[in-house]
Amino acid sequence: MPMTIQSFHPPVRTLMGPGPSDINPRVLAAMSRPIIGHLDPAFVGMMDQMKDLLQYAFQTCNALTLPVSAPGSAGMETCFVNLVEPGDTVVVCINGVFGMRMKENVERCGGTPVVVECDWGRPVDPQQLEDTLKAHPEARLVAFVHAETSTGACSDVKTLTQVAHAHDCLVIVDTVTGLGGCELRVDDWGVDAIYSGTQKCLSCTPGLAPVSFSEAAVARIKARKHPVQSWFMDLNLVMGYWGPNAKRAYHHTAPINALYALHEALVLLQEEGLENAWARHRHHHEALKAGLEAMGLNLLVDEAHRLPQLNAVKVPDGVDEARVRGLLLERYGLEIGAGLGPLAGKIWRIGLMGFGCNRKNVQLCLHALEAVLLEMNAPIEGGHALPAASRIYAG
Amino acid sequence: MPMTIQSFHPPVRTLMGPGPSDINPRVLAAMSRPIIGHLDPAFVGMMDQMKDLLQYAFQTCNALTLPVSAPGSAGMETCFVNLVEPGDTVVVCINGVFGMRMKENVERCGGTPVVVECDWGRPVDPQQLEDTLKAHPEARLVAFVHAETSTGACSDVKTLTQVAHAHDCLVIVDTVTGLGGCELRVDDWGVDAIYSGTQKCLSCTPGLAPVSFSEAAVARIKARKHPVQSWFMDLNLVMGYWGPNAKRAYHHTAPINALYALHEALVLLQEEGLENAWARHRHHHEALKAGLEAMGLNLLVDEAHRLPQLNAVKVPDGVDEARVRGLLLERYGLEIGAGLGPLAGKIWRIGLMGFGCNRKNVQLCLHALEAVLLEMNAPIEGGHALPAASRIYAG
Repeated sequence: MPMTIQSFHPPVRTLMGPGPSDINPRVLAAMSRPIIGHLDPAFVGMMDQMKDLLQYAFQTCNALTLPVSAPGSAGMETCFVNLVEPGDTVVVCINGVFGMRMKENVERCGGTPVVVECDWGRPVDPQQLEDTLKAHPEARLVAFVHAETSTGACSDVKTLTQVAHAHDCLVIVDTVTGLGGCELRVDDWGVDAIYSGTQKCLSCTPGLAPVSFSEAAVARIKARKHPVQSWFMDLNLVMGYWGPNAKRAYHHTAPINALYALHEALVLLQEEGLENAWARHRHHHEALKAGLEAMGLNLLVDEAHRLPQLNAVKVPDGVDEARVRGLLLERYGLEIGAGLGPLAGKIWRIGLMGFGCNRKNVQLCLHALEAVLLEMNAPIEGGHALPAASRIYAG
Repeated sequence: MPMTIQSFHPPVRTLMGPGPSDINPRVLAAMSRPIIGHLDPAFVGMMDQMKDLLQYAFQTCNALTLPVSAPGSAGMETCFVNLVEPGDTVVVCINGVFGMRMKENVERCGGTPVVVECDWGRPVDPQQLEDTLKAHPEARLVAFVHAETSTGACSDVKTLTQVAHAHDCLVIVDTVTGLGGCELRVDDWGVDAIYSGTQKCLSCTPGLAPVSFSEAAVARIKARKHPVQSWFMDLNLVMGYWGPNAKRAYHHTAPINALYALHEALVLLQEEGLENAWARHRHHHEALKAGLEAMGLNLLVDEAHRLPQLNAVKVPDGVDEARVRGLLLERYGLEIGAGLGPLAGKIWRIGLMGFGCNRKNVQLCLHALEAVLLEMNAPIEGGHALPAASRIYAG
């Protein structure tokens, strides 16, 4: 097999899609530090710090708080395979792609999903959940998405969790896009199991899934009647390496360099302060929104339920949205995201996540999008976007 | 929660354990290149090259050859959840830790494992496999480990596969420690499903699991009666992103920087040439072995079945093996591995893997081990190890 494949040098991009987001150079530098063993005393010390840092990001004291060694969707699966037993009824609230994926997870665990079907682009409705739980007293779990990456809608985790607990259900919450980008208080809100990803508002490399489990969730896992169907994701085994008072027993080889990166990303979050990070996302979102609206573009999600870090923008009638994304990438090295599922072709998704959530990116995006749309004779107002954003920044 | 956790700066080590192994600076540099999107055209082009490079490493034309986005143990689980259906009888050959893990995987998939029990430190016996298959004509799959990381024994993949095929079974082969370090010919040997890891002889960061599936394996996956129990590892879904003629449909966010690293590690393997890499491992193993034997130390595995990349060394009587490892780490920054399971306390595992398989490391290890053992008054011969290794290098 004669081959001469050369080293890969990626083009320089600005990532303003639904994730991955641009990575801080400090995090890239951390990732490329020389490797040490996953049982090395120095690495074990780093793991202890990692737990503290993740507890801070999640605002929890949960002892079982760790990064799963795989992407966010494996974080999702880790929650479901550990908490769902065959025959369990699980209420799944669907208001986007990731709710649908939760339902698939329940089915593959042998559970029976009962769906609370919500409009895409709207938050999950607590009243609908309440009605569904009344009709299904056998339900043991409720699953929903905090920050729907496919639509940019933010659901009320605190209220939904209260409703679930009132019906003796534990909750599983998806905050892949939420963590570090908007308010999240795992302990105050009573969340039982939650998972995230590293490539969104933490601006780290993709491939890790921070998770956290309450004592009630751990008790349910320990009381399981059936073994967890996944060996890799079985928290009873993972706890031997990562868990509280663990002996750091070998389970699998941790993705060491990615963990260096996550540690540094979380140190950056600690340096900024969690509430400051939330406020920064909100601030730049306001500027982006002002610019988009000044152009005559509209956001999909109503103001009260918008995620600052994920802006779903309606594509104007008659505009070839894929061509717009292609031109942005080609001319500006700027990546924005497409719609998924029923929203494919109807929205763009503009991310303002973590390190990429800054004034320079807001301005680049507004200028580039306006220029491309004007060139394509789209029905927008030229010349107003950047001044509108500047007014927000001027305060 | 007031915290002031600082950036993590790992100590400088030389990794000569069972993996992870030291990473080539070219691979570390590749990993820290700026991130691009997982659907970016440039990234998709890199994925195509990755497949070619992995096919070369595995010596296969299998279209379904890709890196699973998680560590080697998830590569193992990917093979089992896709190929085992509830009720299937699976013959599992156990001659070390990873065969035991295979058995657990079969059970968690609802299969019935039938075990071929072999001595730890010995290869799997084809005659035992033959006898077991005769007694279990209902078996559909045979699973075994090519290169047992827990013992350093190499099994005869070609012969074991022939035996399995003669009984209408497909095979699943673990080559986590084998790939890139010793002879492996997936197509010539007729292997149906195989998985590896990146942190052994590829000397890449841990967290990815190269896998490859034959047409017969793909046909069996497509003919499944039950859905694959894992959403994350379901190859029917993963194929939409990585597979032949795939539309690169979003399944999960690929671990982009780790994939940059794997691409570079495989480019390095291509530059050296696969057979040259195998010969290099053999050559430095011969030097290490000569030095260890000149010291009076013995290897666990008999000569005909030794892996060059994983040297299991018997701990001399009366020596506190953990203290030896501790002193090597403390004084020389040198990591070697401990024994696992029934071999805990009885062997050390010295890795000569990929980038770390070189003359400098052989000399460091022999000198450091000798010095520490002499200091501890272990019953060894001083002064002979380095000259013995030098004689091998002198040819």
